[in-house]
Amino acid sequence: MSTMVKNPPAEKKSVRPPIVQTTVGNYLLDQLFSLGVEHIFGIPGDYVLRFNKQIEQHQIKFINTTRENTAGYMADAYARLRGLGVACITYGVGINIANALSQAYVENSPIVVISGSPGTDEIIEGHKLHHLLNKQSTAGKMDTTQLDIFKHVTVDQAVLDNPATARAQIDRVLMNCLRLKKPVYIEIPRNIVAQPMNAEPGKLQVRFTSDPDALKESLEEVSNILKKCQKPVIWAGHEIQRFGLGSKLLAFAEKFRIPVVSSLLGKTVISENHPLFAGVYQGDISQLEVSEFVDSCDCLILLGTILTDVDTGIFTAGLHQEMKISATSETIEIGHHTYPKVSFTNFVEGLAQLKLNVRFRHDYPANIDRRQIPFIPKKGAKTTTARVFECIQSHLISKPIVVTDVGDCLLGSSDLTLEESSFLACAYFATLGFGTPGAIAAQIAAPKRRVIGIIGDGAFQMTSMELSTAVRYKLDPIIIVLNNHGYGTERPLLDGAYNDIQEWNYSAIPQVIQGGIGIKVETEEELERALTQALKTRGQFTLIEVELDRMDFSPAMLRFTSNVRGKAKG
Amino acid sequence: MSTMVKNPPAEKKSVRPPIVQTTVGNYLLDQLFSLGVEHIFGIPGDYVLRFNKQIEQHQIKFINTTRENTAGYMADAYARLRGLGVACITYGVGINIANALSQAYVENSPIVVISGSPGTDEIIEGHKLHHLLNKQSTAGKMDTTQLDIFKHVTVDQAVLDNPATARAQIDRVLMNCLRLKKPVYIEIPRNIVAQPMNAEPGKLQVRFTSDPDALKESLEEVSNILKKCQKPVIWAGHEIQRFGLGSKLLAFAEKFRIPVVSSLLGKTVISENHPLFAGVYQGDISQLEVSEFVDSCDCLILLGTILTDVDTGIFTAGLHQEMKISATSETIEIGHHTYPKVSFTNFVEGLAQLKLNVRFRHDYPANIDRRQIPFIPKKGAKTTTARVFECIQSHLISKPIVVTDVGDCLLGSSDLTLEESSFLACAYFATLGFGTPGAIAAQIAAPKRRVIGIIGDGAFQMTSMELSTAVRYKLDPIIIVLNNHGYGTERPLLDGAYNDIQEWNYSAIPQVIQGGIGIKVETEEELERALTQALKTRGQFTLIEVELDRMDFSPAMLRFTSNVRGKAKG
Repeated sequence: MSTMVKNPPAEKKSVRPPIVQTTVGNYLLDQLFSLGVEHIFGIPGDYVLRFNKQIEQHQIKFINTTRENTAGYMADAYARLRGLGVACITYGVGINIANALSQAYVENSPIVVISGSPGTDEIIEGHKLHHLLNKQSTAGKMDTTQLDIFKHVTVDQAVLDNPATARAQIDRVLMNCLRLKKPVYIEIPRNIVAQPMNAEPGKLQVRFTSDPDALKESLEEVSNILKKCQKPVIWAGHEIQRFGLGSKLLAFAEKFRIPVVSSLLGKTVISENHPLFAGVYQGDISQLEVSEFVDSCDCLILLGTILTDVDTGIFTAGLHQEMKISATSETIEIGHHTYPKVSFTNFVEGLAQLKLNVRFRHDYPANIDRRQIPFIPKKGAKTTTARVFECIQSHLISKPIVVTDVGDCLLGSSDLTLEESSFLACAYFATLGFGTPGAIAAQIAAPKRRVIGIIGDGAFQMTSMELSTAVRYKLDPIIIVLNNHGYGTERPLLDGAYNDIQEWNYSAIPQVIQGGIGIKVETEEELERALTQALKTRGQFTLIEVELDRMDFSPAMLRFTSNVRGKAKG
Repeated sequence: MSTMVKNPPAEKKSVRPPIVQTTVGNYLLDQLFSLGVEHIFGIPGDYVLRFNKQIEQHQIKFINTTRENTAGYMADAYARLRGLGVACITYGVGINIANALSQAYVENSPIVVISGSPGTDEIIEGHKLHHLLNKQSTAGKMDTTQLDIFKHVTVDQAVLDNPATARAQIDRVLMNCLRLKKPVYIEIPRNIVAQPMNAEPGKLQVRFTSDPDALKESLEEVSNILKKCQKPVIWAGHEIQRFGLGSKLLAFAEKFRIPVVSSLLGKTVISENHPLFAGVYQGDISQLEVSEFVDSCDCLILLGTILTDVDTGIFTAGLHQEMKISATSETIEIGHHTYPKVSFTNFVEGLAQLKLNVRFRHDYPANIDRRQIPFIPKKGAKTTTARVFECIQSHLISKPIVVTDVGDCLLGSSDLTLEESSFLACAYFATLGFGTPGAIAAQIAAPKRRVIGIIGDGAFQMTSMELSTAVRYKLDPIIIVLNNHGYGTERPLLDGAYNDIQEWNYSAIPQVIQGGIGIKVETEEELERALTQALKTRGQFTLIEVELDRMDFSPAMLRFTSNVRGKAKG
């Protein structure tokens, strides 16, 4: 329970909220809680134990992970679903979370990493403390190596070494996290955690502002383009989801009846069952009808789309349209000029409110067919990657969140038809091993929904044992391991023994971690039965290991290798 | 096989070795091989596949690990035993290895991290490549985030973007690694790997030089001190081992009959069965007779000892002696003055050659008793931490390498009596999870010896599945998991549910990874039987899970909590 007292009944004359007494650690926890954080992922350690104890006594629940980097991945997945995620580590060995920060940085996931550190009273000249690089120990200064490393992959940082300034630091850092949708870092010396401080409680409000004239001009330009073009298409990216602009995008698309394709990283920014949704566009990796459709447009409107190699099909996306509008959190660009004083959020909000009597009749072609086809297992047929995705597709009526790792599990999933905000994957930074912890965290973030994790065997070996955390907290993600016996995506590039991995009996993992259900399937019938059963099972995870041929790939992976392989260098 | 051709028979007039044609990647591999590297640990990835292929075709063997940071820990363990270790990763997600670099940096382990990266021909303005932070992509420059991060935890770095300069860069970076015994970083763009270059083959020679007059003066001072004192003691640290100075230290100690204690990090710098060895000294954590012995000395000679909190018993080591000599790779200090122009290596070599007619009669007290006591299991007695170490001690006749993780497994191991260079632990940076990959790598580095890993359950959950690598390569470390049901070392500091972990059936892991033997023991008889059997078993690992009470600790841990707990803050 927090030490921050509830506001007394407001007196009429009082404008400012009353000052309350709290502690540095509790103020941080209260602010996080007010921003929707109900869980913190992490590992204890001596420098952070006192803060761990504060979490234990707070409404926020501490989720013990098995190691540091998975705590980071879990905070990342949580942030993508809930708007803010938090990981908590101890100093020095906490550097293990640097890759998770990198991924969150580049894929705009607002996570806060909190690290305990030695007390300010322990920093004594020549004293070399464990877990520290101690580069400054001869000068009696705190080692800053962890901070220095994290500066490269966070947008703001604070070392809370002074209770008098802690409140302003915490508020600033959290605001920057939410404003920029990128990770931040907060370090708390262990003797500061419980020190008293005053605070005015109150939820932090993130505001996005633009120059009104610039915003007006940019939106007028959009209006003029919309008046001129016949066949516009919106290519929506992940930033729409991160900035909570899905409904605005939809309002804009629906008002003018503009079809929407998404990037892979932005998959499910709107429901893929929406009549205006026309598929995932990835240049030449796309389904042929989707790429033909986008290529045939005369106006491309990129909203929150980052042009990565993955999302452009290794730069095969045409982008040849004469009329082009592109808005991201970094820049608003129309034609060949930019609007530096216009914020992304205000721009997309403005699009939704455009007053313009235009309604496009630009249907996407009939061959883009997203009807649900029932999965009828062929008797005795061995499982293939393509059929696994067809089987999953047939079960999407339960509207699960799909979390994938990197590899064919990611590419193959691009063809699934999912609801809004129902897809998590690090499709840009491409961290192998994100999928399993990501799926577990998704289940924590959205406890009422089902979560299906789709993970390749190579990726699964990296972080499989995080399923232990699912057992501990009685979480029930469904983990589908696509076992193609090695780093399958790399084999077509340049194969060798280095792409092989040790064969595991994946479905035996529940015997080690003492919970969950493990099933190995080799035929379509077994797969259908296992997935049906898994979707009925709550309170414990189901791991379905699917036996696949070494060189069996999804249709999307085949499009990738046949259309863009030349550009994807081994 | 290397493309570097063998030297033709030397012609008499030729002084310089002949120039040979090789490639950038092969030159690097040849240099590593000539320095004793026979194994490289890592994970493949598209940016590094071509280099992976070169390794496959070289004498050096690639060891596939299950993830990046364990590859780093394994390279670290290998380096401690073999003098140089190498990990190989792909760009961006390779940041996962940053913690392993931090540990190697602070504990002087010479490792080389090699990362593949995008081809120099792929760095195009605005092209955002996967796995990259792409902070510089709008300027058409290569992203340097990984390099920038690694700069904080390496002593030299090279990006081999030009075959013409690659040779000089490789040689410089490797020399700095060996000279400073700290990690270095080499990045190879994938289009450079196979580019031709000329090289003069020849093993790199590391030379340590000092100002001759300064060296002479410092050694004369030592002579004068040795003439004056009656009871000197050498406190030897890990740098003696890292710089390969064990035999020089021993020559010095034996010539003058000076007793030797070691730090915990430096444990086994000399054989602990040597008559002059008097124990591991850690201030008030030490066995009482050891700390009394050191406290009673009138001259303390620190050689390669870093005064960390762990190694000084949280700064309880007295260090009150009037006569004090301290030599490390960073500074040579006698009394209150330093010799900046004297190298650590030359100084220790000089000590071994001191000409001085002194022979101390300063026996360490009879109560320091290291006779092997046979372990006789008490019938039906439940296993305790203390008895586990007694059991291990009784089996040390096989002269194994002991690798420990952090926690009571580390502290408890301090009392074991081991042979020279037979103890590996990150007793300073204290990375939880080092033990299991460390033990596996030790087995690779020293295939003829037995390796006993002693790991707490919390640490084991972090990296347990690296045992998969032991199965794949038919390695047979013995892994003893001390299962005290959580982060036991933290419980006396500040306990809470955050110190609990999910209960695993550790001995079932072989069923998942399809190899090795798993045994759970609950009594002394079972423990004795399991360890005896394990020591007879070759070709596959044995995992012995030892059931312990939650609050059961080793004698060393009890010394820690009773003598220095006040200084070890929760």
